[in-house]
Amino acid sequence: MAKIAVLGYGTVGSGVYEVIKTNQTIVNKNAGEDIEIKYVLDLRDFPGDPVEEILVHDYDVILNDPEVSVVVEVMGGVEPAYTFVKNALLKGKSVCTSNKALVAAKGPELIKIAREKDINFFFEASVGGGIPIIRTLNLCLTADDIEEISGILNGTTNYMLTKMADEGWEFDEALKTAQELGYAEHNPEADIDGWDACRKIAILTSLYTGKNTDYEKVYTEGITKVSARDIKYAKELGLKIKLIAESQKTEAGLVAMVAPIMLKKTHPLYNVENVLNAVYVRGNVLGPAMFFGSGAGKLPTASAVVSDVIAAVKNRSNIKVEWDEEDLNLASLGSVKRSFFVRVSGSEDEKLKRVNELFGEVRTVKVPGLDGEFGFITKVMCEDDFNVGYDMLDGAIRRIRVDNVEDK
Amino acid sequence: MAKIAVLGYGTVGSGVYEVIKTNQTIVNKNAGEDIEIKYVLDLRDFPGDPVEEILVHDYDVILNDPEVSVVVEVMGGVEPAYTFVKNALLKGKSVCTSNKALVAAKGPELIKIAREKDINFFFEASVGGGIPIIRTLNLCLTADDIEEISGILNGTTNYMLTKMADEGWEFDEALKTAQELGYAEHNPEADIDGWDACRKIAILTSLYTGKNTDYEKVYTEGITKVSARDIKYAKELGLKIKLIAESQKTEAGLVAMVAPIMLKKTHPLYNVENVLNAVYVRGNVLGPAMFFGSGAGKLPTASAVVSDVIAAVKNRSNIKVEWDEEDLNLASLGSVKRSFFVRVSGSEDEKLKRVNELFGEVRTVKVPGLDGEFGFITKVMCEDDFNVGYDMLDGAIRRIRVDNVEDK
Repeated sequence: MAKIAVLGYGTVGSGVYEVIKTNQTIVNKNAGEDIEIKYVLDLRDFPGDPVEEILVHDYDVILNDPEVSVVVEVMGGVEPAYTFVKNALLKGKSVCTSNKALVAAKGPELIKIAREKDINFFFEASVGGGIPIIRTLNLCLTADDIEEISGILNGTTNYMLTKMADEGWEFDEALKTAQELGYAEHNPEADIDGWDACRKIAILTSLYTGKNTDYEKVYTEGITKVSARDIKYAKELGLKIKLIAESQKTEAGLVAMVAPIMLKKTHPLYNVENVLNAVYVRGNVLGPAMFFGSGAGKLPTASAVVSDVIAAVKNRSNIKVEWDEEDLNLASLGSVKRSFFVRVSGSEDEKLKRVNELFGEVRTVKVPGLDGEFGFITKVMCEDDFNVGYDMLDGAIRRIRVDNVEDK
Repeated sequence: MAKIAVLGYGTVGSGVYEVIKTNQTIVNKNAGEDIEIKYVLDLRDFPGDPVEEILVHDYDVILNDPEVSVVVEVMGGVEPAYTFVKNALLKGKSVCTSNKALVAAKGPELIKIAREKDINFFFEASVGGGIPIIRTLNLCLTADDIEEISGILNGTTNYMLTKMADEGWEFDEALKTAQELGYAEHNPEADIDGWDACRKIAILTSLYTGKNTDYEKVYTEGITKVSARDIKYAKELGLKIKLIAESQKTEAGLVAMVAPIMLKKTHPLYNVENVLNAVYVRGNVLGPAMFFGSGAGKLPTASAVVSDVIAAVKNRSNIKVEWDEEDLNLASLGSVKRSFFVRVSGSEDEKLKRVNELFGEVRTVKVPGLDGEFGFITKVMCEDDFNVGYDMLDGAIRRIRVDNVEDK
């Protein structure tokens, strides 16, 4: 019998309780022994709820109970989660968390403590919700030199961009609906400014490079500037705008970023719609692979957390995770080659000569009904060179990166 | 230092050699110790090839060398692979194989021997080539009651169906091209008659149910009857014909089958083209997830084999795999509900009344240029009821199952 404690009885915490109760037989069988939730920690009371009898308000009760071998942290945020998790590990209790803020900020330190204590710190649910991408990187794609990971890692913004494309909504309308449906938080900055996706790509990059990726150094551009007009241009071009988190080995070094990118129909992430998440991985011998599913939501996330609990119960010794405290050097985006989409005010007749001087041959596009402006897509060029031209272009309204999937 | 032997120096075997040599540093790091190929077994000689020095023709050299801790079987076919693998396991050597025929026929016996000897029998590459679906089922989706697995598990037939749809080719032309490109074997029956996909879905079904699925009892229909005309109807209806291997828990019990199915645009497997493979999994708490990548090919398959070798070196004790020798009872397809597409000779005017008597309301379709026949899609009905009507319909040319993704 393995006894566990769940820290936080919010959406994910109540999901963990529900998944274990619903699938108790399967969970026990896969863990090789019975799993029982001995405590749920929350500041609130839940009168009438089945957890009422096992609810505690004082973390020390859990910390000091030697029967508790696995602690599930699903509170979110760096503190007090960090202190709670660190103390659990130091007491020899394995920890499973869904908390990307904690993992992105403190991952290598917590992994190191778990290794020293010969227990485990697992965080499958911190990236991609129910998609088992962390374990896939750690245990499955082990024969490969991973050359690239890119993905749609934030369900809220993907929902918003899908609706903006399908319904012609403006950004504000998409955000309001996402909030009404419970996809977006009341303070949605972490989603729409790209920081949620940024933390997740930093975690994946740390895992496949083995070195710590400081998420604050990852170039991050959200979707707040993406307008219904931009999306009309994308449609006219047969492209979709998605918030892509990507990380790749280039000649200049490792480049990571989060930004809206226009994708072609042939791109593997093109068809990932609504709140779905997807992770695309390219290995030097495996070639391309993709994993997709529910990136968020109570039960899919809880499914990933409980699979971690099962692994923690099954593996009482440490499973080595390569993620050192040494910081990874990130190369600048300047040398990355791709095409760029630009919107310019004015007419093609007036401006095209100047555009050609700055960018060479381009493909122009005009959206019926959008007067007084036009758009163009450059040839493949490195970002530094593009920026020189863009800064010198009078009347430039917006630039959005374009993926060149056929060049890979 | 872990020493391994590779049985078979064909496509996959030479791929395993290449992957280990190319990624030796990564492979060693992930295994936690250096991995060296001590022997390659093949009946042939390879003068001038780098394996020449480690080539042996006598399996007993490998079997009786106590230094060899892991045997890689990539010969294919049940014999002599079965005898070689069994003897290796009995000698306490872990085995990694890409051989679906062996795993489908002898899986539970070999898993049992490995468990008794406290070593491992791994077979990641036997299904889905480079897609890590076996480890995903065994180690990742452990918190779920898996309700359905379906997939495109055979790259050759998927290539053929893609070309028939894109280029309007007939079956024979698609097969000839697939053979010229090396996708299809000289004797292509295992692919085109569905037996390759059948063995793979039997393996996946055994893993998620924990009981042995006799692949010979899985209803299997290949693509040999799919014609360019059928595909024209599919196009007219906005559907694609794919060879789907599927296995699902229904009220009547577990149903498994391999057959061409018409998929709607909203189906997750709709966009899987050419030689790609994809596996769709639905869990009771996870919801839907999909995994896709190169289902075959020298290096992707070898990548999966080498990830097994790394796992075998890292885990010297047995990792339990749930796949008992007890046979799974498969329910008949008769109770499965879906729509059906039917082609009929004659005109709608003549036949529609009879069609409606037999199947109720249907959606009819006419392909410009295909005279003297028409098609229709039935409402959702169980297969037994459909068959009663179909047998009574004069002039019926063909029926193809249609997936109803929105009903799930």
